[in-house]
Amino acid sequence: MATPEEESGPLASPYDADPAFPLHRGGKIEVRPTVRVRDRGGLSLAYTPGVARVCSAIAENPALAYDFTWKANTVLIVTDGTAVLGLGDIGPEAALPVMEGKALLFKEFGGVDAVPICLDTKDVEEIIDTVIRIAPAYGGVNLEDISAPRCFEIERRLEEALDIPVFHDDQHGTAVVVLAALINACKLTGRNIGDLRAVVSGAGAAGVAVTDILLDAGIGDIAVADSKGMISRDRADLNDTKVALLERTNRADISGSIDEALIGADVFIGVSAGSIHDDTVARMAPGCFIFALANPDPEIHPEVARRHAAVVATGRSDFPNQINNVLAFPGIFRGALDVGAPTITSGMKLAAAHAIANVVGDELSADYVVPSVFDRRVSAEVPRAVAAAARRDGVARR
Amino acid sequence: MATPEEESGPLASPYDADPAFPLHRGGKIEVRPTVRVRDRGGLSLAYTPGVARVCSAIAENPALAYDFTWKANTVLIVTDGTAVLGLGDIGPEAALPVMEGKALLFKEFGGVDAVPICLDTKDVEEIIDTVIRIAPAYGGVNLEDISAPRCFEIERRLEEALDIPVFHDDQHGTAVVVLAALINACKLTGRNIGDLRAVVSGAGAAGVAVTDILLDAGIGDIAVADSKGMISRDRADLNDTKVALLERTNRADISGSIDEALIGADVFIGVSAGSIHDDTVARMAPGCFIFALANPDPEIHPEVARRHAAVVATGRSDFPNQINNVLAFPGIFRGALDVGAPTITSGMKLAAAHAIANVVGDELSADYVVPSVFDRRVSAEVPRAVAAAARRDGVARR
Repeated sequence: MATPEEESGPLASPYDADPAFPLHRGGKIEVRPTVRVRDRGGLSLAYTPGVARVCSAIAENPALAYDFTWKANTVLIVTDGTAVLGLGDIGPEAALPVMEGKALLFKEFGGVDAVPICLDTKDVEEIIDTVIRIAPAYGGVNLEDISAPRCFEIERRLEEALDIPVFHDDQHGTAVVVLAALINACKLTGRNIGDLRAVVSGAGAAGVAVTDILLDAGIGDIAVADSKGMISRDRADLNDTKVALLERTNRADISGSIDEALIGADVFIGVSAGSIHDDTVARMAPGCFIFALANPDPEIHPEVARRHAAVVATGRSDFPNQINNVLAFPGIFRGALDVGAPTITSGMKLAAAHAIANVVGDELSADYVVPSVFDRRVSAEVPRAVAAAARRDGVARR
Repeated sequence: MATPEEESGPLASPYDADPAFPLHRGGKIEVRPTVRVRDRGGLSLAYTPGVARVCSAIAENPALAYDFTWKANTVLIVTDGTAVLGLGDIGPEAALPVMEGKALLFKEFGGVDAVPICLDTKDVEEIIDTVIRIAPAYGGVNLEDISAPRCFEIERRLEEALDIPVFHDDQHGTAVVVLAALINACKLTGRNIGDLRAVVSGAGAAGVAVTDILLDAGIGDIAVADSKGMISRDRADLNDTKVALLERTNRADISGSIDEALIGADVFIGVSAGSIHDDTVARMAPGCFIFALANPDPEIHPEVARRHAAVVATGRSDFPNQINNVLAFPGIFRGALDVGAPTITSGMKLAAAHAIANVVGDELSADYVVPSVFDRRVSAEVPRAVAAAARRDGVARR
């Protein structure tokens, strides 16, 4: 019986002109055995009856799942498809190529097994319930591309409910790499983070987390703008997340447009879709740092930024200093899983940022404040630093 | 900081005397990339910005997920850990080694990628809701080791709610291989399935499914016993599943103990934990077939069964004619996925049974009515037969 597809020819051929499509055909990841079952004897160990003895041992002591299953090395990548790249709410199926890409990078750069879960719900309670119910076979949860402010509550409540690390990469992965870049920008220019005043454009997942990690790192002052202007005391329209953010930011209480706040500012960090006027850029402090991370269009074009700033970074691979989460998430989970940490502490994130910054070493220059994602020292150093921080913070379980 | 585990040495060493434990260390499966990302160019296709074009295409036409993600080849293996092997309700973590074993066998014998989901809930509604919510990234659902009668409702409602195949292997995998064995037992002895009267011991997942497939295959009559005796009109204690089962079985309305029903019976199929007395076995019809599948202790010992029966099968690998689901589930899903079938029809299951039986061919003997799981012809023939049946049944979508 001919189906409509058979009659009209293969559906996908028009896409093959773009090399991204042939590369994606059939997906980017697979599930493979790590043990071979070549005969009846092998089958009787890996499956019945031998497997029953392993099951019984875990039933008596569930912690043995970390030894005799894939749990200790495997994380869920969970999305509801509401904030995928710059594409917005495109739904669970359409989010899957990104989650597969993430799983590929987890394995390639961290040796971590990762399983994509694309949820057919956007309800916060349903997302939380679902992740809790499917968690037993997994050693961690990487939340991905979930829109703000829902992502904050989902992460907080999953972190409380589960005894495995929960990490929203759009927040903390970005924040860790931004801090790494800032550490090296300071090193290059002989400045201290504590002396800097920073302005963040964007109060979504990345903006909040970048602000928090810079506060943890001792930034002098930091203020955040959303699409309506500076988050300041005179705003009556702030949601709970932004009210809480205001409590720990903008000590000078600068209100109005971001242009006001940028006068004399030392650091601009853009994680929004907005754009900053050239005249405003020119009024920043001399030798400032501009990290304009919006994709594909940075808030400040790198050419303009370079005229005023000592260090310029973007989210793009075709300019120097790409702030790329791939530098952070595989190694952070690798380190956390290696020591069985039930959570990822602030200390572990700071340690990851310093480790990323340190890899640059003597190669440090204005065009090289973060290492290449293909620098294998990143894969070695970040896990080591994160595991050591987990031990210092008392959360290492092995 | 030394953790308790460090002070007392590795937790797992006492287990290493049993070869099943070293084999299970670190688990049995992994998630691997199928494309390599060796440089910035590769990264920009497999991840941002290239992946965004694939996401956008799927957002416009979700069916493209079957072409450009792993969905078309990937199934969930879902359990709540309530009926694991013969161990019963051992919980989600303890069930994981079986689910990993299943995933290993899916890949090894069917080329199917499979992801274990061990649920932290036993509530039927929560199980159904959870599976529906996590289904978008997957092309099928294999239910596993979920206790009866809950498994029947869970399978039926998931089948209704999802447009991908849902298959409870403890039911249908067992049923397909039992039918394959029965087809060959008939061929060997020159009998017709329509002339046989069968008695099934066990009205759980396997018992109900075996009964249904034998009815679909045209068995003469079939009656089912549970732990309280024959399921017959005089029983007032039957749950909905058993009332429905009675409507299509036991035309002779044999009541009382299974011993009564076995007098003159042509086929015994045991999928329970009970045992049958030797004298009862001796009263079965001459040249009968005895499939005593309980593990590790068959309902009738194969030595006893051989004295009376023309063909004897068990669930054990150390006797001839092992009724092993591995013969069925990888190829059934392989065939269903190959044609994009949204369901697994009765015709597809019957076709799988005939394909398994046919592989035996000229080697057919009383001790060889089902092929070895390592016979590679099984992996070739079952998918082909299942795909052809899907086309005949009008459920092939490609």
